[in-house]
Amino acid sequence: MQGLTIIKPSPKHLSSLLVAVAAVMLVLLAGVAHGGRWLFASGSEDEPCKKMTVYYHDILYSGNNTANATSAAVTKPAAALSTAHSANGTFFGMLVVFDDLVTEEQALWSEPVARAQGFYFYDKKEQYNAWMAFSLVFNSTAYTGTLNLMGADLIAERTRDISVVGGTGDFFMARGVATLRTDSFEGLYYFRLQMDIKLYECYV
Amino acid sequence: MQGLTIIKPSPKHLSSLLVAVAAVMLVLLAGVAHGGRWLFASGSEDEPCKKMTVYYHDILYSGNNTANATSAAVTKPAAALSTAHSANGTFFGMLVVFDDLVTEEQALWSEPVARAQGFYFYDKKEQYNAWMAFSLVFNSTAYTGTLNLMGADLIAERTRDISVVGGTGDFFMARGVATLRTDSFEGLYYFRLQMDIKLYECYV
Amino acid sequence: MQGLTIIKPSPKHLSSLLVAVAAVMLVLLAGVAHGGRWLFASGSEDEPCKKMTVYYHDILYSGNNTANATSAAVTKPAAALSTAHSANGTFFGMLVVFDDLVTEEQALWSEPVARAQGFYFYDKKEQYNAWMAFSLVFNSTAYTGTLNLMGADLIAERTRDISVVGGTGDFFMARGVATLRTDSFEGLYYFRLQMDIKLYECYV
Repeated sequence: MQGLTIIKPSPKHLSSLLVAVAAVMLVLLAGVAHGGRWLFASGSEDEPCKKMTVYYHDILYSGNNTANATSAAVTKPAAALSTAHSANGTFFGMLVVFDDLVTEEQALWSEPVARAQGFYFYDKKEQYNAWMAFSLVFNSTAYTGTLNLMGADLIAERTRDISVVGGTGDFFMARGVATLRTDSFEGLYYFRLQMDIKLYECYV
Repeated sequence: MQGLTIIKPSPKHLSSLLVAVAAVMLVLLAGVAHGGRWLFASGSEDEPCKKMTVYYHDILYSGNNTANATSAAVTKPAAALSTAHSANGTFFGMLVVFDDLVTEEQALWSEPVARAQGFYFYDKKEQYNAWMAFSLVFNSTAYTGTLNLMGADLIAERTRDISVVGGTGDFFMARGVATLRTDSFEGLYYFRLQMDIKLYECYV
Repeated sequence: MQGLTIIKPSPKHLSSLLVAVAAVMLVLLAGVAHGGRWLFASGSEDEPCKKMTVYYHDILYSGNNTANATSAAVTKPAAALSTAHSANGTFFGMLVVFDDLVTEEQALWSEPVARAQGFYFYDKKEQYNAWMAFSLVFNSTAYTGTLNLMGADLIAERTRDISVVGGTGDFFMARGVATLRTDSFEGLYYFRLQMDIKLYECYV
């Protein structure tokens, strides 16, 4: 800022200033060239450079749903910690591997848009609470590529945010935030998450 | 650079140059507009845009500390690899899920600032060595939001760096590095890590 | 853009314009100062700011290769889902922890450049498919530091991309993409991946 104050305002300088400001605006508005692509910077926190809502369906293997199940527990809960606060337990330590269906609409039988491949595990004694990391694997007419996500799934919160930490293909180098909301659950073996994915760094 | 050399130095040009340099400085100092927020770029590697030191306390379930334990092993070490170099073993393959207390001061009973939710596992035959991924979940008067971290916890090194790969809430879109140091350990069931968290990309 | 059009082209303005354009070019070409380091922006998607090809060797513990094994399964496949489509199974749910050798040339006995420390698990009923997260831990004359990666290892694809989500040391704050290719496999207990690592955000 001080660099500007030493210049006395004269018409000549003002025009130079205008040009310089225009140059800065160009950089700010157009985004910053990264690796030969443009890193697109959009309006505000409410206006990410890309936004989509998808639904994640987790059908956990129950012992007799082999055909439908898309996930399975591969470790048992740590019994003592899981039942520390109630006999039913909070599944502390149960790790689930999944290859879950992701759809554009809520219904399980609606148009698939991606697979979610990854894992989650329960990690709290007092209540249901999880942590997850996974890839959204897109392979449709709309998108090819992946988004990679990780974060705390604070189930007790109505909505909670996890990070989009990278992307490939159509989502090359993307970063952002995904807001999760438990949209539905049926007993122990099915739940659906609404995922509002907002990218704030896009290479286009 | 060549674009500048074709301009002969005259007072008029010098003033234009000053303005242009000021414009560049503005961009460099003020940061780059990303998604409608400002990505703040601070001074140097020694001056991150945000810095904090916290202490992570891992109290592993031992079989008889249900009330205090905040973590539990959910897989057993691969015995043959874990004891390849000594009878006591290096826990190769043991995966621990945690919901650990994070404090501002060293003492376990000092003011909590966050929970660390995630997992680590031991992964080396010859020595203690781990890999970890977790979220720091803040919910205090100072901060609301999460930081997501992952990386190799090279226990044999006095200090080692892992990556801060994303953030939410007050840490929206943050990136940085966390330097870990084993601050204390008591037998097999308690250790404390000092975590120096330095963010180099901050949206403010 | 409109900011520029209101200025009438005269020699004086043209020189200012030149300087301003040079200023913008400087920013675009030189990269953007982040945290006191330079975030280097290189040419194009085909010209990352840093590029290297390495080979990852996974030698899974088989029951009688203790000396050579560098990885071990720590969970069993979920049998019902793993064998849903063939008796041999797809290992759905099997999680493997590794401390694998990474070399510059294809041969297992060639010059080591890093260790890959992390985990993968199989996650599909119909075919071999995995998900992985790991650190490349460099400690050589060439490099000191780590790169942190995660993503879907779509084994059925000839090549597939995962994300480089962070780095430390010589790879401070790096981001990029790694393209994986199954270069060789021998039965169930050895496979080699070619990893083309391309960084598009480099602090130098």
